[in-house]
Amino acid sequence: MRLTKQTSYAIRILMYCAANPTRLSRMPEIAEAYGLSEAFLFKILRPISEAGLVESVRGRHGGIRLARPADKITLLDVVRVTEESFAMADCFESDDPGCPLVDSCELNSALTRALNAFFTVLSEYTIEDLVRARPNIDVLLGLDKLELARA
Amino acid sequence: MRLTKQTSYAIRILMYCAANPTRLSRMPEIAEAYGLSEAFLFKILRPISEAGLVESVRGRHGGIRLARPADKITLLDVVRVTEESFAMADCFESDDPGCPLVDSCELNSALTRALNAFFTVLSEYTIEDLVRARPNIDVLLGLDKLELARA
Repeated sequence: MRLTKQTSYAIRILMYCAANPTRLSRMPEIAEAYGLSEAFLFKILRPISEAGLVESVRGRHGGIRLARPADKITLLDVVRVTEESFAMADCFESDDPGCPLVDSCELNSALTRALNAFFTVLSEYTIEDLVRARPNIDVLLGLDKLELARA
Repeated sequence: MRLTKQTSYAIRILMYCAANPTRLSRMPEIAEAYGLSEAFLFKILRPISEAGLVESVRGRHGGIRLARPADKITLLDVVRVTEESFAMADCFESDDPGCPLVDSCELNSALTRALNAFFTVLSEYTIEDLVRARPNIDVLLGLDKLELARA
């Protein structure tokens, strides 16, 4: 059981923007800060933009920023966008050969309750919490050097 | 986010044995009941045997049975055996290119707390609960026909 890479990449983009609140963030900078491929980060940009978590400013000096304050974006908001499927077990997917117990199987209600408990905890954490927990996040992400280069 | 097929197959094997408490269950019967490949079910048999959830009786009239009562096997017991990794995000795996925030990242503690909440719910359900919720489980699994054939 694990989250998709999309989820962790989305969280990293949001944390970068939150740690860089006064400027637009550029995708090549974000990719470099995390040692990730820019192409991969771009893939996740569209769904998190459409979900109203980030907004893009086009043009030569364009970039992205959070579409609402970092303390108004919970981890549950992100996971809802980036996790494609919440059928937790293959039994409940249409491509399963067909377990004879699938209708009203108690396993489904157990997993649904467990998943809701998981979501409840995620809803208690915001992007702001993650960023605030790292006082030197701007140094770790190389934002201080970008600032100097522009000064 | 989803459980591995191993988990759902393990749960199905355990439910079959629980629904068939007075006889040994044979793997070809279990595979047929669920429309699954026997080879795939065999793969999961070893870890759930080693974990003390089922026991095998060898020989021509051999088969498997629960190693302890169905109300003493929780869904958490199964998930602990069958889910290989509980690093919920790729950031915390050694093959990640290296997020600069990985040490003491608050995301890790958020996911750990969320996962614990998930596990707590799973620990409240036993294999017996799943079987008891389906009064006609023996018919659904074809156990009644096997009984007749032997009579």
